[in-house]
Amino acid sequence: MEVDSDEYFKSYEDLDIHELMLKDKARNEAYKNAIFANKHLFQDKIVLDVGAGTGILSIFAAQAGAKKVYAVEASKLFELAREIVKENGFEDVIEVLHCKIEDFTLPDDVEKVDVIVSEFMGFYLLHESMLDSVILARERFLKPNGSMFPDRAIIYISPCRIPSLFEDWENVSGVKMTKFAEQLRKQRTTKPEIASIQSSDLLSDETIIAFLDLNDISTSDLDRFDFNEVIVANKEGRVEGICIWFDVLFPSDNDEIVLSTHPQCESTHWKQTIVPIPENNETVEAFSPIAFKLTIQRHPEHFRRYNILLEILDPYSDEVIHPLPCDCNLTKCILTKAHLQSLSENDFVNA
Amino acid sequence: MEVDSDEYFKSYEDLDIHELMLKDKARNEAYKNAIFANKHLFQDKIVLDVGAGTGILSIFAAQAGAKKVYAVEASKLFELAREIVKENGFEDVIEVLHCKIEDFTLPDDVEKVDVIVSEFMGFYLLHESMLDSVILARERFLKPNGSMFPDRAIIYISPCRIPSLFEDWENVSGVKMTKFAEQLRKQRTTKPEIASIQSSDLLSDETIIAFLDLNDISTSDLDRFDFNEVIVANKEGRVEGICIWFDVLFPSDNDEIVLSTHPQCESTHWKQTIVPIPENNETVEAFSPIAFKLTIQRHPEHFRRYNILLEILDPYSDEVIHPLPCDCNLTKCILTKAHLQSLSENDFVNA
Repeated sequence: MEVDSDEYFKSYEDLDIHELMLKDKARNEAYKNAIFANKHLFQDKIVLDVGAGTGILSIFAAQAGAKKVYAVEASKLFELAREIVKENGFEDVIEVLHCKIEDFTLPDDVEKVDVIVSEFMGFYLLHESMLDSVILARERFLKPNGSMFPDRAIIYISPCRIPSLFEDWENVSGVKMTKFAEQLRKQRTTKPEIASIQSSDLLSDETIIAFLDLNDISTSDLDRFDFNEVIVANKEGRVEGICIWFDVLFPSDNDEIVLSTHPQCESTHWKQTIVPIPENNETVEAFSPIAFKLTIQRHPEHFRRYNILLEILDPYSDEVIHPLPCDCNLTKCILTKAHLQSLSENDFVNA
Repeated sequence: MEVDSDEYFKSYEDLDIHELMLKDKARNEAYKNAIFANKHLFQDKIVLDVGAGTGILSIFAAQAGAKKVYAVEASKLFELAREIVKENGFEDVIEVLHCKIEDFTLPDDVEKVDVIVSEFMGFYLLHESMLDSVILARERFLKPNGSMFPDRAIIYISPCRIPSLFEDWENVSGVKMTKFAEQLRKQRTTKPEIASIQSSDLLSDETIIAFLDLNDISTSDLDRFDFNEVIVANKEGRVEGICIWFDVLFPSDNDEIVLSTHPQCESTHWKQTIVPIPENNETVEAFSPIAFKLTIQRHPEHFRRYNILLEILDPYSDEVIHPLPCDCNLTKCILTKAHLQSLSENDFVNA
C-alpha cells in the first residue's frame, strides 16, 4: 500500500496532468468565483490548501485577503508551487509545505484553520480518492464552524447512448465497421471510458446516486455506493451504457456556486465517466423503465482505487421493485399512479 | 532491431490508435475521394494495400471495382480486418495476408500489381518511417507505370508562435503561471510536441523542406533532410518554435486531390509537429529574416526513429547566406532586390 501511495504522488510530478488541470477554465473559474464571492470568509483568515499542486487555489485565497495559507503538497511539485507563489507576490502569505497531509502539523501558535480549500476530485468524483485526505484534514485542522471549499458533492447517473462505441461505426466513409466497434467495446469493458458525451445522449433525467456533505461525512462513508432503482427513460434510445458525473458546490449566501461536470455544462478535464454495456443493447421507448444495479466500491487492498460494477436487470421481472408512484409505462405503474393520484385528490377535496 | 520492429507491429494491435485513425474523417475521405475519382485505375485491376490495418483502403479499392486486392498486415489486426472485409461483402475480392511486406510474395500467376495503396504517414510524415516499406513494395511488386496512392508527399515548415507553451500562461484566471510554463517547456524539449496550432500562429508563408515523388524515391532518400535557409516573417510575432506538417497528393487528371495537415485545413489525427525553442524567443517584425538549421535524420541504430535537430541562427551574421533576391528587410537585401529588379526591367526594355 505504501508503494501505491508513492506512485500516486509521483504521478503528480508529471506536468502534463497539471497542464490539463490549469487549462480547465470551468474548474479554475468555479474556484475563483466561489472564493471571491465569499471574501468575508477569507479576509484575515487562516486557510489550508490540501494537495496544493501548482498553488493556484492558495493564490486565489491570498488574493481574497487570507492572512495565512498553508499549501500542503506531497509531490515534488512543491518547489514549482513556491516559485509560482513568489511570482505572484504572495511569498509572505502562502507557506508551501512538502509533506502528505497525514504528516502535516500546524505551527504551535496556530490551533486550527478557518477554511479548507481543495481540488480533490477525480474522475466520477471518487477516482484516486483524494477526498479521504480532505476529510482527514477537516477532522484534524478545521475550526468548528470553519468552511469547506467545496462543501458538498453530488454524484449523478443516467443511462445513455454511446455513439462513439456504437452508432459511429455503422458507416465510416461508406464502410461498415461494426466488427471493429465490437472489438473496441470488448477492449473497453475492463475499465470505464472517460469521454465527453452529448447531453442529448442521456436517456433519462439525472438521478442522484450520492450526496456528500463534506462538513459531515467520514472516510468510511466513501467505501461503497449502491444504486438499485428503476429509472424511467425520457426519450427513445438504445441503452448502451451508464453515464456517471458529479457536481461540487461551494458555500454561498445567495445563488449556488456549482462546478458541474454535466454533459451540457462547459467541458472539463473530468469529462464524463461511461460504463459501456458491450452487447444486447435494448432500444427503449420514452417512459420505459430501465433497471440496473450499479456499485462503486473501494478496492479491498488498494485504498485509492475503486471498482465499478454494473448489472443490467429486467425491469419487468418480479424481482425489480418499482417506486411508488412510478412514472414508467408499465400498466401496473400507470394504474397505481392514477390510483394514488385520485386518493390524493380526494384528500384535497375532503380537506 | 528485431525487437524494435516487433514492438512496432505490436503497438498496432491496440485498437485505440485505429479508433483515432478511423475517426479521422479528413484522412478517410481523402483516400476515398482519390480512389473513387480514379476508378479507371482500379476497375478490374490488381491492388496491393501495404499495412492494411482495419482494411478500409482495401475496401475503398474493392468498391472502386478492383478485381483483386492483397491486404498485407503484419500485426494481429489481420483477423479483425478479415471480419471487416466479410462484413462489407468483399471476401472474394480482398485477400488479407498476415505478414510483413518484406516477407510477402505474390501468387505464382500474378507477376506484378497495378496499384499500391497505403496510409503510411506518421507524425511529420516520417515518424515510424513506414514509407520505407511502401518503397520496398513498389520496387518489388508494382508494374512499370503502375500507380501509387498517394504518389507524392511534401513536408513543410514555418516558424510559429506556440501560445499553449508561452502566452497562455501569463494569466490563468488572474494568476501568473510563467514559471509553470518554463518547466513545461523544459520537460518538452526532449521530444517534439504533437499539437494543433492556429494558422494565424504561423509567422511565415509555408516553406517546403522536402518534396518526395513516391514513384521515384528510394529508402536512402529518407535518411536525412536538411533545411538551412533564411525565412522571411510575414507578420510580427515571437518566434517560439518551428511548426512541421505535410501534405500527400494522389494521382489526378484534373484537380489535385490532397490530404493536407496544414493548420488551416480540417484537423487530422496527425495535428502538427512543433519543435519549441524553450527560451530567449525573439519578437520579429514583418519582413524580418529568421534563420535556423533544421535536420530530420534517421536514428543510426533504430531504423524507425528519427531525430529532429534545431539550431537557431543569427540572421544578421555573415555566416548566414540570404537568397538572391531576398524579401527580408535587411538594407543589403532591399538594395540587392531593387538592383536585380531594375536589371530585369532593363532586360525587358531592351528586349
